[in-house]
Formats: sequence, structure tokens, C-alpha cells
Amino acid sequence: MFNKDTLEYHYSDRNRLAPLPHLQRQISKTASSMSDIDQKFRLPKRYEGSEPSVWVEYIQLALDHKPLNLGQGFPDYPPPKYITNALIEVASNRNLHQYTRGFGHPRLVQALAKLYSKLIGREINPHTEILTTLGAYEALFSSITGHVDEGDEVIIIEPYFDCYEPMVKYAGGIPRYIALKPKKTDSPVLSSADFVLDKDELQGLFNSKTKVLILNTPNNPLGKVFTRDELTLIADLCKKYNVLCISDEVYEWMVYKPYEHVRIATLPGMWERTITIGSAGKTFSVTGWKLGWAYGPANLMFNLQMIHQNSVYTGCTPIQEATAIAFETELARLGSDESYFVSISKELEPKREFMAKFLQEAGMKPIVPEGGYFMMADWSPLESQVDLNSEKDKYKDYRFTKWMTKNIGLQGIPPTAFYNESHKPLGENFVRYCFIKQDKNLQAAADILRKWKSG
Amino acid sequence: MFNKDTLEYHYSDRNRLAPLPHLQRQISKTASSMSDIDQKFRLPKRYEGSEPSVWVEYIQLALDHKPLNLGQGFPDYPPPKYITNALIEVASNRNLHQYTRGFGHPRLVQALAKLYSKLIGREINPHTEILTTLGAYEALFSSITGHVDEGDEVIIIEPYFDCYEPMVKYAGGIPRYIALKPKKTDSPVLSSADFVLDKDELQGLFNSKTKVLILNTPNNPLGKVFTRDELTLIADLCKKYNVLCISDEVYEWMVYKPYEHVRIATLPGMWERTITIGSAGKTFSVTGWKLGWAYGPANLMFNLQMIHQNSVYTGCTPIQEATAIAFETELARLGSDESYFVSISKELEPKREFMAKFLQEAGMKPIVPEGGYFMMADWSPLESQVDLNSEKDKYKDYRFTKWMTKNIGLQGIPPTAFYNESHKPLGENFVRYCFIKQDKNLQAAADILRKWKSG
Repeated sequence: MFNKDTLEYHYSDRNRLAPLPHLQRQISKTASSMSDIDQKFRLPKRYEGSEPSVWVEYIQLALDHKPLNLGQGFPDYPPPKYITNALIEVASNRNLHQYTRGFGHPRLVQALAKLYSKLIGREINPHTEILTTLGAYEALFSSITGHVDEGDEVIIIEPYFDCYEPMVKYAGGIPRYIALKPKKTDSPVLSSADFVLDKDELQGLFNSKTKVLILNTPNNPLGKVFTRDELTLIADLCKKYNVLCISDEVYEWMVYKPYEHVRIATLPGMWERTITIGSAGKTFSVTGWKLGWAYGPANLMFNLQMIHQNSVYTGCTPIQEATAIAFETELARLGSDESYFVSISKELEPKREFMAKFLQEAGMKPIVPEGGYFMMADWSPLESQVDLNSEKDKYKDYRFTKWMTKNIGLQGIPPTAFYNESHKPLGENFVRYCFIKQDKNLQAAADILRKWKSG
Repeated sequence: MFNKDTLEYHYSDRNRLAPLPHLQRQISKTASSMSDIDQKFRLPKRYEGSEPSVWVEYIQLALDHKPLNLGQGFPDYPPPKYITNALIEVASNRNLHQYTRGFGHPRLVQALAKLYSKLIGREINPHTEILTTLGAYEALFSSITGHVDEGDEVIIIEPYFDCYEPMVKYAGGIPRYIALKPKKTDSPVLSSADFVLDKDELQGLFNSKTKVLILNTPNNPLGKVFTRDELTLIADLCKKYNVLCISDEVYEWMVYKPYEHVRIATLPGMWERTITIGSAGKTFSVTGWKLGWAYGPANLMFNLQMIHQNSVYTGCTPIQEATAIAFETELARLGSDESYFVSISKELEPKREFMAKFLQEAGMKPIVPEGGYFMMADWSPLESQVDLNSEKDKYKDYRFTKWMTKNIGLQGIPPTAFYNESHKPLGENFVRYCFIKQDKNLQAAADILRKWKSG
């Protein structure tokens, strides 16, 4: 189990920005009052407007108020033992601590090629069609900056993992947003499957300047698992307009019955225009290992290799070897009940049910996710019980989540962080909670809400 | 000891580029004969001209000819046991496998702050003045792209670690080069100390557009350790022209008596305009751990944090924890004979002596390095014994090293790779060898050269 102090320290300090006062200096100080150094060494123009992500503020909030924190997306319990044993085994081999191949440790790219060749239904070349990266985050960075040029348009589906937007902008690209919107439904419980793209709206975003569409399935924060029909619509437009699809599939193994993860690279004509991204952190519940990968056709992967070569060069040898061992274990039992790729969803499903139930009992309207380990919930039925005026933020979800943290002791993440400025109102009535947490912590969250309701 | 097959695989495959034919397609195919996808998805303009580094070609060369390889810079023997034991210990703690703080794992930044506060002679704030990175490589990337804007001039001292140039260019900067040149000397054995900067030439590079100077001491590939006087000259110019110094000091612990590593950040008025970069891989002989750091004043570090946040986000938790443990061990014995920071140079010194001797006996003129674990040597006295015409490369050092690999079975790296185009002739008579290798391998290299000479 996590040591609570360590965990809180992690929560509290993870990605805390340098000095917030200093940040404000960057933003607000006028040139005339700045020193020569401060004046000259501002962020380069392409990064202007960079600011700390939602995480910085909410981690500080957690530090200050010590709520039960269902914010960040990582398990608060240990990963499977065979995974950590693999790292012990590798660390004990004193010959596995030096540089490895820059584009991917040989044993790992072999294992990845074996796995994804089966899943994609074509032979994947481990040396030319796979790049291992320092987290899926670096895979996104290499994919986006390796393919987006000044003035290229990039279609981003909302709500989106928040790094897509700055990565596209730094590369000089122009993000074009389309939001998943709820279908009319009579059901008292919403499903992420009820959130869909408007076909005409999507089609209207494509034009000759469109270079890339970023797909995320299962989606974070909504948990939507795109259906084959939905992916076919996207694929047809990508083919028609000669657009690259960057498919972020880091939650590929967390999909709840009866839903099924479809890899867009398997659709006709899509392999040649898709880069698919995966994560060891999410796949094996070791988010701290910071290992990801991208796969796709060699001509598209070349661009990623060049970015990787000139920003990080090579990955961590022992972590890659240990992950290779974990994949080999999984390859030998693929599809069986012992497979972690099967059991992880079974482990998460009761947590998902439990969270949906206690959020509903508290008066919220949860959107039950088809995949991933986050749940969005509409908290607006509780608005009258919350003093939104006690907070100054522009968007109501920020005010709701801050008030909850300070007054009720339960922390979630405000989803407007996952929408572009003009679409933020779409996220205002929601909160995002993470359910890959110990049962006792989920129970504690339920208790907090029950007490609030009855109090 | 390394398993030879693994090692060769590493050598052979490390950073092998995707398909070389494909690279040529990128470069030479005309637009009309390219598919729609190939045509649209070339590298963005800012990366045009990206090509595989010297490593790619020479790793392939090693694969094809299986020479004794003294090319790449990493030990071919195991790291100290307390380092690998630290990773075993951490891997065994099942609570240390999730995300940690993005700008640096708390225990590691604490240890780094303690160490460098002592070395720099001022209190370093672990949270605002240190960033841990995915290798020193990412620290260079974050420093350079976080500070270099379109049109900024960046002074690079030659010979230089080869990634500086593409990083500066991708950021839109204009590299301005100055080469270390040999003083006239009567000594039969050259020292890296004989290579100096021309004061007037250096001064002439500074102007109002100069944003950054990149220093590398001890220098790779030359092994030069900049003296306090030399650093003072650089520092005075940086202060006069309000220039940031990025000081790459990854070989800080490999300095041979009587030379001494001076950190430019300790010079008067330099802390506030210096970012210093270090490496766990080099410090603890675990190049595969892929962990580095940068430290400097908070206002300058802010820019690095923004790049880090939007390209890789956070580092590897177990690797950072293990490195923290290693630093704590070293902090407790700092300056004593047991300190690895002391013993590493003692371990390397006889290897350096031995290499200098056998290169000299073979007829080359080695430049004995004051620091680092590379040695450059002038091979031109042997020119008559080498069939340079058998190779087609533009520069003689490429032809010499290739001929040696194919015909004599000993591989080094051609130093023109470490000079900009107009200065490449300065490197043509040299070869770079690495001496952090097992004694038996250095002996084998000596035997190869002796046999060649007598043959």
C-alpha cells in the first residue's frame, strides 16, 4: 500500500510550478520594471502564454486542504507483482544499465511488434515501424511536432487530454475543435456512448489545410470508446482529405463489456495514415515508469524518430527491458483469463459500478464510461447546495470542485480544462473523478458524499 | 560483464535509423513521384535537413565489420554495485511505481540541492532551481528550446557534442562557432590544455543578438577542462552582453590531476545567468538510466519547466528514487577516498595513460585529455599506411576511421562530426577513442595496433 505521507507528497508536489509569484512576474510585470536578464530571457515567442496546467493548481489545492483526492489518474495501490518482479530481475543484471538502441530497446520493440502484429493483423517491423518513448506523452510530442508545420490545421475532439492543445500550438499548428455532445436520451443514467460527434460539423472541419486529426479512444476524461461506425466516419474523412490520424490509445486495455476497443489502424486504408500511441504506465499500472510507444508505417515514423533523436535521443534501458519481460509474459497468455489485459477491466468494473452508484445517490448524474478509469458526472442538480459565489473562477466547474475540496473534503478535476476556450461552457456542469483507487478510498468518498447529503 | 551478443546488438542497433532507403526517399525523391501521403507528411520546415547522426552510420559500420569498438561513450563493464543495489531496493518497494512530481522527484531534488549547494557555495532551492530531466540530453533540449527564439545567436565552442547544433537550429537560433585551436608547443605529447580559444575571435562573436553561449567542460570529444582564467573571459563577455551560459558539465567528476573542474556558475555574477547541466548516467556509470538535471536561478529555470511540461511532463519514479539513494550515499562520504566521485577518475587515469601510450607507439599523436573519457589523436603521421582512396567520404577522418574498421578491426569516431561545415577541416586529422573500457579490451586495441605496425 502507499505510504500516505509519500502519496500526499506526490499529490501535493507533482508538477508544482516553480514559484507561482515568479510566473506572475513573467505574465504581469511590465518590461520597464524588469531586470535586463528578466527582460531578455522571457519565453520564446512560440511558447508565449504557456501556463501551468490544471494539475499545478489542483495539486496545490490538495496540499492546502488535504481532501480525499480522486483527481489524478493513477492507481493508489501497487501494480501486479510480476511487473515489479521484472524490474527487480533486470536491476539485478549488472549488464543492463548502459545505453540501448535509441529508437527502442531491441527486446522491447520485438515484444511490441509481436503483440501489435497480432492485434493489427499485419506484420509490424520492430525496427522501422515502432518507436519507444519516454512516456506516451513524449510519443504525442514527437508525433505532433514531427508532423505539424506552421499553419497546418489539426482537428481535436473535445473533451481532450490537455497537452494536445499546447503541443499543436508550439508546432505552429492551428487547432480546430469539435466537441462530443450528448444525444437526447430518456435513460436516467448517462453513458459515455451517448456522447457523439455531429457528422456535418466534423465534415465541415476538414479542408485542404487539415494535416492531422487527434483521436483518443478510450477517451480521457469522458471514457468514450469509439464504435467501428464512428471510426469509419473519421477514417473516411481522413482518407478523403489525406489526413494523418494520431490515435492515442493508452487506455486500450480498460474497456468494459459489452464495449470493444477498435484500433483505427485496422480499418481499410488506415494503417498507412495512422500513428497509434500506447503506454506501459497505463497498460501495466506503473505510471511512474514513464515508458510509451508509437507505431505506424515507416515513412510516418521517420518524422517521430527525428524529433526523438534531437530531444531525448534514447530511452531507459532497465525500464524497457522490464517492460519487455512483462509483455512476453502477457504474450504467452494472451486472451486467457490470467491475462492482465483481461483482468484489469474486471478489476476496475466493480469500482466503476460503485462510483456510478454513489455519485447517483449523492444527487449527481454520472456518465458511466465505456472505457478508461475516469468518470465525468453532472453535478448541477446539487448547485443549490453549493456556494459557488465563494470562489472567483470564471467557470462553474472550477468553483464547484474548489468548494467541494475546501468544504466537503472530496477533490475532482474541473473538465473545462479539457475544452478550448470557446467550448468551455460545455464542461461547466461536470466534474471528473478517477476510480482506479483502493476500495476503501472509494468507500470513503461515498461516505463523504452521503454525510454531506444528510448533513 | 556484458554479454557479447547483447553488446553487439546494442552497438549495432542503437539509433539505427528507420530505413535508410526511406531516408533517401525523403531527401531525393521528387515531389511528382511521391505518393500523396509521402508528399504531405514530410518533416516540417523547421526540421528540414535533419539527418541521422554520425552514430547511425558508425553503429551500422560496427555491425557490418565487427571491429573492436572504441566508439560510443559508455563503460563496457558494470557500474558500482551500490548503484544497481539501489535500483533493486527501489524496484522491491511496490509503492514507488506511480507518477512523481513533474519537475523532479522530491527525494532526488532534495539530494541534488544538498550536493550542489555545497559545490556552488549558495543555497539552491530544490523546488524552483532544479529540474530533473530524461537524460542530460533532455536538459539540453529544454534549456536550448526554452531560451532560444527565432533569430537569436548562439555561440558554440568546437569541437562540440553533436546535438547542440540541431537543437539550436530547430529553435530558430543562429549558431555562431568558435573552435578551440592548438597553441604552438614543443611537447611531443599534446594535452587538451594546449587547445585554447582566441580571445579576439571570441569577443568578435558577441553582439546584441547573442542570447546564449553553450559551454561544455570537461569537453567532449577533446577532454579539455576550462581553466578559471578561460572561464572568467567567457563570464565577462556573457555579463557584458547579457548572455545566458548553458554549461554542460556531465563529465564533472572525471577530471585528472592536477586539473580541477571549475563550475562557471560559481564565478562572480554568473549564477544569475547560468544553467548547469549534469547526468546520472555519466556520474554513476549508468548511461542507460537516462536521467539528467539542470540547475540555475528560478527565473531562467521557468522556461525549461514549460518545455519539460509540454514535451515529457515528468520523469521515471524508480530511477529517480534510486539515483537519490546513490547521491545520499555519496553525500555522506563526499571528498573521502571512498567517494565514487573521487575514485572514478582514479579508475580511469591508468586507462587514459595506457591509451595515450599505445596510440603513441602506433605512431599517432594523442591529445591527452584533462577530463572526460575520450581521447582525440592525430592519425596523420600514419597517412601513408592507409588507403584513404578506398573510401568516398568528403572528410579524411571519415575515410581513415572506416578504413581502420574494415581493414585493421579497430573503430573510432571521426571528429569532423563535432565541427560545423566550415570548420570541419580542423578535425580531419583526428580520431576519437573512448577509454572507459575493460582493460582487456584496451589491451586488445593496443595489440591490434602493434600488429598493424609490425605487419
